[in-house]
Amino acid sequence: MFVIGELINGMYSAVGEAIKEKNKKVIQDLCQKQISCGADCLDVNCGPASRSPATDMQWLIATIQEITDKPLSIDSSKPEVVLAGLEVAKNSVMINSTTADPEKLAILIPLAKRYHAKLIALTLSSQGVPQNKDLRLELAAQIVSACSEAEFPLEDLYIDPVLLPINVAQSQLKDILEAIREFKIISEPAPKTIVGLSNISQGTKKRSLVNRTFLTMVVGYGLDAAIINPCDNELMDSLIAAELIMNKQIYCEAFLQAYRKK
Amino acid sequence: MFVIGELINGMYSAVGEAIKEKNKKVIQDLCQKQISCGADCLDVNCGPASRSPATDMQWLIATIQEITDKPLSIDSSKPEVVLAGLEVAKNSVMINSTTADPEKLAILIPLAKRYHAKLIALTLSSQGVPQNKDLRLELAAQIVSACSEAEFPLEDLYIDPVLLPINVAQSQLKDILEAIREFKIISEPAPKTIVGLSNISQGTKKRSLVNRTFLTMVVGYGLDAAIINPCDNELMDSLIAAELIMNKQIYCEAFLQAYRKK
Repeated sequence: MFVIGELINGMYSAVGEAIKEKNKKVIQDLCQKQISCGADCLDVNCGPASRSPATDMQWLIATIQEITDKPLSIDSSKPEVVLAGLEVAKNSVMINSTTADPEKLAILIPLAKRYHAKLIALTLSSQGVPQNKDLRLELAAQIVSACSEAEFPLEDLYIDPVLLPINVAQSQLKDILEAIREFKIISEPAPKTIVGLSNISQGTKKRSLVNRTFLTMVVGYGLDAAIINPCDNELMDSLIAAELIMNKQIYCEAFLQAYRKK
Repeated sequence: MFVIGELINGMYSAVGEAIKEKNKKVIQDLCQKQISCGADCLDVNCGPASRSPATDMQWLIATIQEITDKPLSIDSSKPEVVLAGLEVAKNSVMINSTTADPEKLAILIPLAKRYHAKLIALTLSSQGVPQNKDLRLELAAQIVSACSEAEFPLEDLYIDPVLLPINVAQSQLKDILEAIREFKIISEPAPKTIVGLSNISQGTKKRSLVNRTFLTMVVGYGLDAAIINPCDNELMDSLIAAELIMNKQIYCEAFLQAYRKK
């Protein structure tokens, strides 16, 4: 599993403050912490309160690159903020994210190609979040087709079915699991699959239990990457055990010690 | 999920002692405890040390029936012990278990029919445990076909793919998950599916983590019933959360309190 740490996000108050005050230490410590807990990549998001998101994105990326060469996921729905991030990135990068809208794909696929970035694509359109599996597959097929036409490598495409909170869209979660499996049969080579995990438990109690239960199930459906809180130890232990069951890591008696990246 | 409590088994020393000394209280307390933790059915197994398993099975069943009318799973590989249990059972019953061997099916299917018992059938033959998914499906098809011929209702058939320990058969676990899904397409109506969960963690560390991770994944693959330790609270919480994700229970904010059967 490619683990993308979600904690560098201005919506968390400590990170939002640090961005405002240009406090490098807070950001760098949180990056180190996520890496020590097993993050393979760091998501970078200025948060909704940022008044100059392009500048803030550049400051965040420069700040993080001072202490790590781990891949970065440039997280913004605004192409101009993504571009600002790409311009200063020296580490390898993912773009997080495009939707299936033709206008967005027409901007973000060429950007991803030009900067050798991986691309996260949400099965979302201007009509909103699809309400069933077939619509998700249809949007995924449109994304794959746009990437193929633009000769963007499908191994670098990560399709995200848009995970909804269990308290508002419980009946869709099984569809989302199946979509993760079926995205793989859209093309050869197959696109990769990803979820932004914490969405599922937004606004609920028992967030960690709901998160780790869904992550365990979706590993069983073949998920490739997840944007998660790597500092949730029970989540990471569940992930390790799930990958053992799927035979993606070799079992040994002290498997938690072996695969915890601390 | 149909939860079968696994704790009345003579291989556990307290239960083995209680059977030897005919100590009703130990057995009855353990049954009450499992029921209060969420068991829908109680497995009954004299254990390997019993010198007169038919008599011990009858004593266990009579003892349990004094305090509950929950279904019982009569657990023995010996048809004569199963028969002894069926003769004294007043509660509804499952036979645990037959293999796919024609001689065993020829004895146990008619027994199940005569006593209106559900039947657990292992995808095992005289050649031993199958080493891949296709052999499991082949044996499952033989079991289904024998049940159909004997006009045994397929809704009362529970096929068990034989879960192996992760430390000896790690590479088979994915096959077993897929077998659980594919057993469902063998016939219409479909047979039910079951696993004896604790096998997966036999001889390993972190048993509870491995158990609950596999159970969560296999709920995602559509499992109908499981023989488990219902007194493992983390296991039961994972099961509740997994069934919410599969939309088998309705989400509410206090879902653990609502669905814990305590």
